[in-house]
Amino acid sequence: MVSESFDQVRARVQASFDRQGLMKHLGAELVNIEPGTVTVRLTHRPEITQQDGFIHAGATSSIADTAGGYAAMTVMDPGDNPLTVEYKINLMSPARAPVLEAVATVIRSGRTLTVCSVEVFGVYGDQRSIIAASQQTLYRANET
Amino acid sequence: MVSESFDQVRARVQASFDRQGLMKHLGAELVNIEPGTVTVRLTHRPEITQQDGFIHAGATSSIADTAGGYAAMTVMDPGDNPLTVEYKINLMSPARAPVLEAVATVIRSGRTLTVCSVEVFGVYGDQRSIIAASQQTLYRANET
Amino acid sequence: MVSESFDQVRARVQASFDRQGLMKHLGAELVNIEPGTVTVRLTHRPEITQQDGFIHAGATSSIADTAGGYAAMTVMDPGDNPLTVEYKINLMSPARAPVLEAVATVIRSGRTLTVCSVEVFGVYGDQRSIIAASQQTLYRANET
Amino acid sequence: MVSESFDQVRARVQASFDRQGLMKHLGAELVNIEPGTVTVRLTHRPEITQQDGFIHAGATSSIADTAGGYAAMTVMDPGDNPLTVEYKINLMSPARAPVLEAVATVIRSGRTLTVCSVEVFGVYGDQRSIIAASQQTLYRANET
Repeated sequence: MVSESFDQVRARVQASFDRQGLMKHLGAELVNIEPGTVTVRLTHRPEITQQDGFIHAGATSSIADTAGGYAAMTVMDPGDNPLTVEYKINLMSPARAPVLEAVATVIRSGRTLTVCSVEVFGVYGDQRSIIAASQQTLYRANET
Repeated sequence: MVSESFDQVRARVQASFDRQGLMKHLGAELVNIEPGTVTVRLTHRPEITQQDGFIHAGATSSIADTAGGYAAMTVMDPGDNPLTVEYKINLMSPARAPVLEAVATVIRSGRTLTVCSVEVFGVYGDQRSIIAASQQTLYRANET
Repeated sequence: MVSESFDQVRARVQASFDRQGLMKHLGAELVNIEPGTVTVRLTHRPEITQQDGFIHAGATSSIADTAGGYAAMTVMDPGDNPLTVEYKINLMSPARAPVLEAVATVIRSGRTLTVCSVEVFGVYGDQRSIIAASQQTLYRANET
Repeated sequence: MVSESFDQVRARVQASFDRQGLMKHLGAELVNIEPGTVTVRLTHRPEITQQDGFIHAGATSSIADTAGGYAAMTVMDPGDNPLTVEYKINLMSPARAPVLEAVATVIRSGRTLTVCSVEVFGVYGDQRSIIAASQQTLYRANET
């Protein structure tokens, strides 16, 4: 069914990410794309904060949702478009770190529905600690 | 315990909202603040889209989370700061509308934890239809 | 598509409920079936408690999940079988009441996915107060 | 703060589990208690089924919730009672297996709130596959 190389999958994921106005507006970057797992990075700046100056839960959620969507895309066929059905996120610590990384992993890939587990880490140089965890359900839309 | 007028509560909610860099960056506005319920509005523009040009789930979630946080603040005491513990959101239809409104309502207000129900509507002139629903838990932090 | 009367829908829902070993084992009853909404009742007894003698969150969740599934069935076609994809439940107060009622309502009915909102009430005679709220996603399986 | 040995923690967890009428009524057993992780096992029987004869999502959720609660108890102090604030569960495959095991792990332990990740496996002899995943928030009640 899938006749692409994984480099083609990567190019497809990157091209879709680049069409997301929100990711650009927040300053998020795709930093890793592997089969079934994708990492999105976000750097602290005043435009993405909540009232106390930490990164807003909405920004944290945005990269978690996006990482999950593209992790799902890596296990789908060309022409399939993963749409978020729902997700739940626990914000376990304030997002004080200068950099966040959302690491999404596919835990169930079905014909119609895909489930991802996403961890968001606060990154301080070489150190990282988990600040949020999400569980997400995606629907495989087919555009062809 | 609460000796403020509701106008003072409103001013406190608005001032906190105005300190959220993310809300300004997304172009979101606080359009209604009543006891136990708050509405946040977001207007479509290219900076908040996903890959198909609709409003990104992360932007939808950001206003849902913010509306819930400030609905919680309206039932808390001065000096209390509502922090999102977790939320779950169902994205029931693509966010095609030119304007979204997130309407949050407190459904349980406890000493430590508050629970909000949030509905996000797509607004087309006089018409509106629900596009997302969220259930959120907040923690009452006290800064004094 | 649906040529049944609503009495036929009711009979179909009741027959399916009666095949659920768990509902019988817990002592749960279907007490209302209307288009898009279903109520399931559960009466306190020692067999359904947690460590403090209140009704266990698992029992509360079981009737919430079941009520949502059958609310979804009322808006589906004959031969469609609603399967729970996921749900989230907030347990807002201890389940101290002698009787619980889970009232589920369909908030989005799609071709593949249905979303229900479920409220669980503690019932004391004529009085009732909300003790839990759930949001649930169901998949329409077709057995024909 | 904690002056107990882990054997004392185990005894405390087991004693609390044994007071849960629901776990006994479902036939669930505590099969592993380690610091920060607990496993609960459930064996298929007609009393815990849904309409198709598989284990009911409510029974699956019940052992997931219980495993998470006791995983949280292993990292709390004597006298602390973990209460479920909320959880979200994805039911990824039908529970066809003869035995289920819910394995809960604490992913964040705070002063007031604890977050657990729970995986439920279908067990067929030596083989197991994940059938559900849950994310749960617990509140530390103190009874002393």
